Amino acid sequence: MTELFADKFKNKILSQKRGLIGIAQINPIAGNIEYNAKKVVKYINLAQSIESDLVVFPELTLMGYPIEDTIDRYPIIVEDNIKWLKEIAKITTKTCAIIGFVEPREDINVGKKYYNSLAVIQNGAIKSIVRKSLLPTYCEFNDYRYFEPSPVVGCQSADTLCNFDESKIENCPKTIIINGIKYGISICEDCWNNKEFFNDNVLYSKDPVEELSKENPDVFINCSASPTRAKKEQLKHNMLSFISKKYKTPFVYVNQVGAIDNSSFDGSSRVFNKEGKLIARAKSFEEQFLIVNPIKNIGEIYPLTNGSEKTLAEVKEYTLEYEPDLERTYKTILQGIRDYFNKTGFEKAVIGLSGGLDSSVCAVLLADALGKDNVLGISMPSVITSSESKNDAQNLAQNLGINFLEAPIKNVVDNIDKTLKEIFKKVETKWNNRFEDSFTMDNIQARSRAIFLWGISNEFSKTLPIATSDKSELYMGYATINGDMSGGFAPIADVPKTKLFALAKWLNENRAQKNTIPQSVINKKPGAELAINSETGEPLTAEDALMPYEFLDEIIWRIENKKENYYDMLNAKFLYEKHKNLPKEQKIEWLDKFYRRMSNALYKWSIMPPSIIVDSRSINKHDYKQPITSSKINYKGISEKEISEKLKEFLLCQT
Amino acid sequence: MTELFADKFKNKILSQKRGLIGIAQINPIAGNIEYNAKKVVKYINLAQSIESDLVVFPELTLMGYPIEDTIDRYPIIVEDNIKWLKEIAKITTKTCAIIGFVEPREDINVGKKYYNSLAVIQNGAIKSIVRKSLLPTYCEFNDYRYFEPSPVVGCQSADTLCNFDESKIENCPKTIIINGIKYGISICEDCWNNKEFFNDNVLYSKDPVEELSKENPDVFINCSASPTRAKKEQLKHNMLSFISKKYKTPFVYVNQVGAIDNSSFDGSSRVFNKEGKLIARAKSFEEQFLIVNPIKNIGEIYPLTNGSEKTLAEVKEYTLEYEPDLERTYKTILQGIRDYFNKTGFEKAVIGLSGGLDSSVCAVLLADALGKDNVLGISMPSVITSSESKNDAQNLAQNLGINFLEAPIKNVVDNIDKTLKEIFKKVETKWNNRFEDSFTMDNIQARSRAIFLWGISNEFSKTLPIATSDKSELYMGYATINGDMSGGFAPIADVPKTKLFALAKWLNENRAQKNTIPQSVINKKPGAELAINSETGEPLTAEDALMPYEFLDEIIWRIENKKENYYDMLNAKFLYEKHKNLPKEQKIEWLDKFYRRMSNALYKWSIMPPSIIVDSRSINKHDYKQPITSSKINYKGISEKEISEKLKEFLLCQT
Repeated sequence: MTELFADKFKNKILSQKRGLIGIAQINPIAGNIEYNAKKVVKYINLAQSIESDLVVFPELTLMGYPIEDTIDRYPIIVEDNIKWLKEIAKITTKTCAIIGFVEPREDINVGKKYYNSLAVIQNGAIKSIVRKSLLPTYCEFNDYRYFEPSPVVGCQSADTLCNFDESKIENCPKTIIINGIKYGISICEDCWNNKEFFNDNVLYSKDPVEELSKENPDVFINCSASPTRAKKEQLKHNMLSFISKKYKTPFVYVNQVGAIDNSSFDGSSRVFNKEGKLIARAKSFEEQFLIVNPIKNIGEIYPLTNGSEKTLAEVKEYTLEYEPDLERTYKTILQGIRDYFNKTGFEKAVIGLSGGLDSSVCAVLLADALGKDNVLGISMPSVITSSESKNDAQNLAQNLGINFLEAPIKNVVDNIDKTLKEIFKKVETKWNNRFEDSFTMDNIQARSRAIFLWGISNEFSKTLPIATSDKSELYMGYATINGDMSGGFAPIADVPKTKLFALAKWLNENRAQKNTIPQSVINKKPGAELAINSETGEPLTAEDALMPYEFLDEIIWRIENKKENYYDMLNAKFLYEKHKNLPKEQKIEWLDKFYRRMSNALYKWSIMPPSIIVDSRSINKHDYKQPITSSKINYKGISEKEISEKLKEFLLCQT
Repeated sequence: MTELFADKFKNKILSQKRGLIGIAQINPIAGNIEYNAKKVVKYINLAQSIESDLVVFPELTLMGYPIEDTIDRYPIIVEDNIKWLKEIAKITTKTCAIIGFVEPREDINVGKKYYNSLAVIQNGAIKSIVRKSLLPTYCEFNDYRYFEPSPVVGCQSADTLCNFDESKIENCPKTIIINGIKYGISICEDCWNNKEFFNDNVLYSKDPVEELSKENPDVFINCSASPTRAKKEQLKHNMLSFISKKYKTPFVYVNQVGAIDNSSFDGSSRVFNKEGKLIARAKSFEEQFLIVNPIKNIGEIYPLTNGSEKTLAEVKEYTLEYEPDLERTYKTILQGIRDYFNKTGFEKAVIGLSGGLDSSVCAVLLADALGKDNVLGISMPSVITSSESKNDAQNLAQNLGINFLEAPIKNVVDNIDKTLKEIFKKVETKWNNRFEDSFTMDNIQARSRAIFLWGISNEFSKTLPIATSDKSELYMGYATINGDMSGGFAPIADVPKTKLFALAKWLNENRAQKNTIPQSVINKKPGAELAINSETGEPLTAEDALMPYEFLDEIIWRIENKKENYYDMLNAKFLYEKHKNLPKEQKIEWLDKFYRRMSNALYKWSIMPPSIIVDSRSINKHDYKQPITSSKINYKGISEKEISEKLKEFLLCQT
């Protein structure tokens, strides 16, 4: 038990048993009830061994969050989560456990089939049920897709289990008393709707915490599954602090940890006292059992992932100072890779090392997530690849200690090239739409490399190839289908290029081993080395083909963070413009190119491999949805006058 | 004007002007306001030229449905749809138009940013606004993600435009009177919640049509965007007939036509009289302006896509008699291909022709959707490809009249093969996890072919490669990543193999040109011809690798249509078992194989190209969502007793 708390707290906490709460910040596997249930039992045992009043688990504990349509296709796992819940209840003693589960709405015909619920279990039985009222359906959330919103907040009696409807709402207290202390319990989104905190801008008319406060609970408890995203940490901290202070009630917030597909949950469960002061916080990105006493103001504050606090302040202007968000970015992705591999049963990764920034950063992330022996880097030079790039790839692999080999693709590319040229000649006899200039041969190189990576994945068990596309390039569709954008997982798909440069430097400075990524990788201009710039005779850089990354990333930042449109940006002063002369025509050209390319990139976004959402907004298909056939949007808008003229003209043609 | 109605109706209809309604069943482009607005103007003009009382358009007319997060990223198109609406209003005369649009909720802080609304416009001005109350969030629908449900049904005054909130609800009539006739107007899902019709099993507690009925309207109008799916047609017909009969009120139902990405809308707008009898129906899968008079019982009934009526009856047992659904399937996919190409600006398709069923059916669909000159079939034989398959591919192309060429892949495959074998040797020195048997070399063939197809797509403008995977094989993950499952569009991803056989025969019998698909294609056993069966020495068939398609497709049918689980199916009698001896052990083996393979196929589903939803349920990622990391689901479930034993054991280990 000693490892549960630092020694300085041990005596203090255990001498204050009344009000003792164990926060079980667990990492579940979606749909694997037995796996999740055993974690629950382990922590209930621990809580009982220290005779705490309560042990609280995250939202949908037994099922894992999110579970999506899985429960529609496999209703049997919902049955199982009820069975496990009932069996687990039997092992509880005086210590009370609060466990999330999917509750079927049996015998009820109106509405969706399930509630997102919590069971309060104690002394061998289910004591009470709490159901989620506010169902987020935005960004990565789909709650309303498969859950019915609860018509009432707080506790309802145990006999409503699987059989609760509006006509049965009991007028008994919505709070619950455990060992003499009154608790107001809610689920995740239920605590995110305080009108005062959000300046009256809220998503729902109802505020469950406000309703619970009317019964003057001694402590609020909220069971959550809230993924980490840029700028969310401070918002969450401030909001929970505000609520506890406003209602003069301590607030216990339990969060899920671990990644489920695209969402990386950061844990960092926490407790605020009734003055709104943080008195306990669990680790970020780690499973943990944290013991607190919110009434007695006792708990331990583990540090947030370094720098997270600093990302909290809302950034008003675009800056290249990414430092405050880099450790969070690193850990978010690391957990994303590790859990994707662990939970799907993969162990090893194979990655093409070009000597460029994207693959170098990915290789470091993979080595740290999976262990260096489980990573294989392959340098696959083509005729365009410089000897510097080859050396950089080899040096990086050597520094990291991952497995490495070189496999020139020249023969394969030449062979495909030759065959394709013959095919093109034949096609030309039928179609007259051949491009004068094309990227075909550039893409052949990227696709040949992917054939090797997928080949290794097919030939060696539990091995996944890695897609190395970054966010800036995905926005521009500057990624090869079945080439660099293909893989079993895409670690950096939500990291823009300028941030990747910062991350590379940060990795070089902050990992135990310093300067793993060769300085030359960071110094060189990004480019896929797939083609030669006819003007310079040098390999074409990405910025030749697109626009300066600093400018490109600021467009992305403005769209995602400030919701600016084309004209907002045309009139804004970009960071790039502060230190470089940028003629208006050039700015217009780049902005138009951005919008045109972004529209044409929609298809590529739709077939991207699983990747981790990192930023405040993303183009991950689970986070942003746009019909591919809407690509002809008029992003510049139109004036009333123009419409009126167009109408006149159109009407003339009609007659 | 004469082409508007058959001559027999012309005089009858035009002599009954009062109550005349034009149903404008249009095919919009999502987000392209100008394109959609011009269609609206065209049909308003038409309606005004025949002096009809009304012209009604589908849901979200100006925006196209669905629009998804596009309006969040491009709020400017919402501004534009309001501007266009106001300008269009100015050209209206006595004829009243009902137009769908996205309505911003300005000055309102609680809830989502938009309503899904209709504007009733007449005599140069907006007369009234109707807002959608019931927001579907299941299958391919995401309405609640970006719309706020309306707190009130029916009409509200024009001055609530963009500025409506609950506190402003007017107690004026919810119906609207136009030329002396009273209309009760609703939007799509609003009419799908009749408790009586659905035997009290409904998704929402509120029934907007029931509420409107209290004001005794003369006619109901519902503006919809409802995609076609197997078995939906009869349900829709019966429901609308039931409602009109129940309320003794004619019902005018206007549907969108055309495809938006994965959803193919069938149009088939219709009118029921107050006895619940169908009196008018527009064409399926075609834009049309249909003139009706619901009060006078006047209209034309265009035939449903042949056989659709017969698909209506709920099939209680699995059958290979797909005939009733084949024309609908054909037209659904045809429209899907055509609109995907048209709306994204592509014109030509390139497809690998193996001489097998999947690619043959795809080629016919492409030729019919895009025109034979816009299709290029390539036979890419490997060493395993039989001469019969080569001939079949060529014969099919010849029959169809599409462009054709042969490009052997042997050299390229050999070259990659050789290089990969060297790589594998090197990898083996580092890792000891090489498979004894692998599919690596099989996949190389499929991937080499995709390299050629994508190469042509890169080299020739407006040309997309086609993914030929079918539904049965996708369920089993029996498709090669970056190989046959890669492409710009996947026409048959929602058609199971046994249905494809039926579709092939149907195409041979029902297209103008008979027997396009060589009989030998239909006769041969499906198989990718990627490997040799070591037992028979013949190319490995898909059924060798999987299980009989008849059995496989019945599993899919039972899961999708009857929601059966593993044990339900183990105990059910399959069609296959009725004519073949199937030992229980074999059945168990196949069922287990199915579930195991389906779980491992989740990743492949997530990276599938856009495809058309055809069936009542699908694995299209916009229709079915399951975390990839949930692949370890216990699909067999567990008993209380087993749980209790597992718990005991686990607790013993813990102490």
